[in-house]
Amino acid sequence: MAAPGAGASGEDALIARYFKPLATDPGAFDLVDDAAILKASGEDVVVKTDAIVEGVHFLPDDPPDMIARKALRVNLSDLASKGATPAGFVLTLALRSADDAWLAPFARGLGEDAAHYGCPLLGGDTVSTPGPLMISIAAFGRVPVGKMVHRSGAQPGDRVVVTGTIGDATLGLDILKGGAAAAALADDAAARDMLVGRYRVPQPRNALAQAVRDHASAAMDVSDGLAGDLAKLCAASGLSAVIDTPSIPLSAPAATLVARGTVGIGALISAGDDYEILCAISENRFEAFARDAGAAGVAVTSIGTVIAGTSAPKFLDAQGREVPLPRLSYSHF
Amino acid sequence: MAAPGAGASGEDALIARYFKPLATDPGAFDLVDDAAILKASGEDVVVKTDAIVEGVHFLPDDPPDMIARKALRVNLSDLASKGATPAGFVLTLALRSADDAWLAPFARGLGEDAAHYGCPLLGGDTVSTPGPLMISIAAFGRVPVGKMVHRSGAQPGDRVVVTGTIGDATLGLDILKGGAAAAALADDAAARDMLVGRYRVPQPRNALAQAVRDHASAAMDVSDGLAGDLAKLCAASGLSAVIDTPSIPLSAPAATLVARGTVGIGALISAGDDYEILCAISENRFEAFARDAGAAGVAVTSIGTVIAGTSAPKFLDAQGREVPLPRLSYSHF
Repeated sequence: MAAPGAGASGEDALIARYFKPLATDPGAFDLVDDAAILKASGEDVVVKTDAIVEGVHFLPDDPPDMIARKALRVNLSDLASKGATPAGFVLTLALRSADDAWLAPFARGLGEDAAHYGCPLLGGDTVSTPGPLMISIAAFGRVPVGKMVHRSGAQPGDRVVVTGTIGDATLGLDILKGGAAAAALADDAAARDMLVGRYRVPQPRNALAQAVRDHASAAMDVSDGLAGDLAKLCAASGLSAVIDTPSIPLSAPAATLVARGTVGIGALISAGDDYEILCAISENRFEAFARDAGAAGVAVTSIGTVIAGTSAPKFLDAQGREVPLPRLSYSHF
Repeated sequence: MAAPGAGASGEDALIARYFKPLATDPGAFDLVDDAAILKASGEDVVVKTDAIVEGVHFLPDDPPDMIARKALRVNLSDLASKGATPAGFVLTLALRSADDAWLAPFARGLGEDAAHYGCPLLGGDTVSTPGPLMISIAAFGRVPVGKMVHRSGAQPGDRVVVTGTIGDATLGLDILKGGAAAAALADDAAARDMLVGRYRVPQPRNALAQAVRDHASAAMDVSDGLAGDLAKLCAASGLSAVIDTPSIPLSAPAATLVARGTVGIGALISAGDDYEILCAISENRFEAFARDAGAAGVAVTSIGTVIAGTSAPKFLDAQGREVPLPRLSYSHF
């Protein structure tokens, strides 16, 4: 027969211990109800879902708190690129076992990011799996009605702009796998740590959301490789683009590795996990956008121009020749 | 270099072929943007997420269209129990490979249910996994502001009411596994099919959502076993309950198996996957609730009474003795 206090199964206890402290929004009902309430407050609700899988998007021995941050941040990055303010998220966590040594830092990292980005946990589901860990998050944001920034909407003559730096995350993954970048940076622990950090913990540009909403004619986040994602943005707008490849912002370690020939620029712009914002900004708005970005503390770089046409965007080198790309972008299938 | 029409990776082609036809809501933007818009229309947005995992919630050789229906319906069932009208959902699909023979019926079943329940696909993420298939859905509903029905709120004296019948799904699973129910029903294919159908394809009670909102003081769906879920509802309300076990509605095959001693009633009320609604209805509202349920075509049965106290709910047999329960409810950990 049921004991007093029944219902406190292992699953419920796990949720109460690790995730209830993250459910700070009144609409989460302390995770003891069956669903949450997201207050819309007269705005449009922006919805995004993205999952990360052990062995595909993160490595089995990545620190649990960083896995949690990545799971949330890949979604926050999309909200930022749509000009939306984070409002909350729901979590599906598929685990092989309920391991406190893994769950405690996972929940701590998730909670710190949820607080930092103003994106509280609203609910979730914890399931057992015999397979790889998987974390699926659906994140919600708010924008004034009709003001979500789309992939489409770019205009010929718009500047192509990216935030931050491109290619660091793929170099970080290469280092974790003991690849060429690891050998080339054997004497530079700080550079290795920076690149690995960029792979493990994206820096979503939510501080730029308002500026994107105010100025961008089209935007998306760069998650599957700059070349492929730019092709998608151009296709959605029925346009093309020409990119001045030497203008693409690289971190100092990435620039060093390209200069030494350890990696080609083509590989960096067709690899995933950048989580920067790619947007089209009309010429007469660029100065205001750059000023607002500066005020938000986010570096932005103009790398090319949207042009008429439907061919794939061209990445030109300093001599005006097309840069060869090993592949356009990451695809799961 | 990128070919014209680039961006149409395997993943994008898969989404365009199978899932774009399901994205009938204008806020889904044909799945070519990075996020969707859920119009709130001045109501509260109810958010629920539930995942199903191959080998845990469904069997590897379950028909793909039924797996899809189950994935959506387990979430629709929660929306119904909260009194919410379905508004849309996002999907995370973790697949070992992009197999047309599996994806085509999966998408067809999902699309038929999305249309039937008025719950269009708003977005999703398709990822590769070396492990078991997993489908995680976050579903959204709408309720008038402040009108979501909670787990808490039951009052002493309220009737305990359930929809449909209890225990069929666990018998269906037992049949699929070749258990005692399979042997006992060896000569009754219709009964076996009915029970297996109840396991594979839940019948969420969304037709009852309005009646639940209008009349229930507390409600939740029965997904982890009636005994455990009633204990949760009572705990959320700070109350207890007494259940007249012989009143619990059973299908004819389930009643036959209990009468023959193939399965105990205790096992049926502590097993999962019923996806019925459990609610507390005040005595003076019960008649109106039953009338509205009848108009909605949903069978409802009064099985007991909410009482003061914090002990676990008691399930009494016809002689007033407590029914032994093998376990309270399903837990993943």
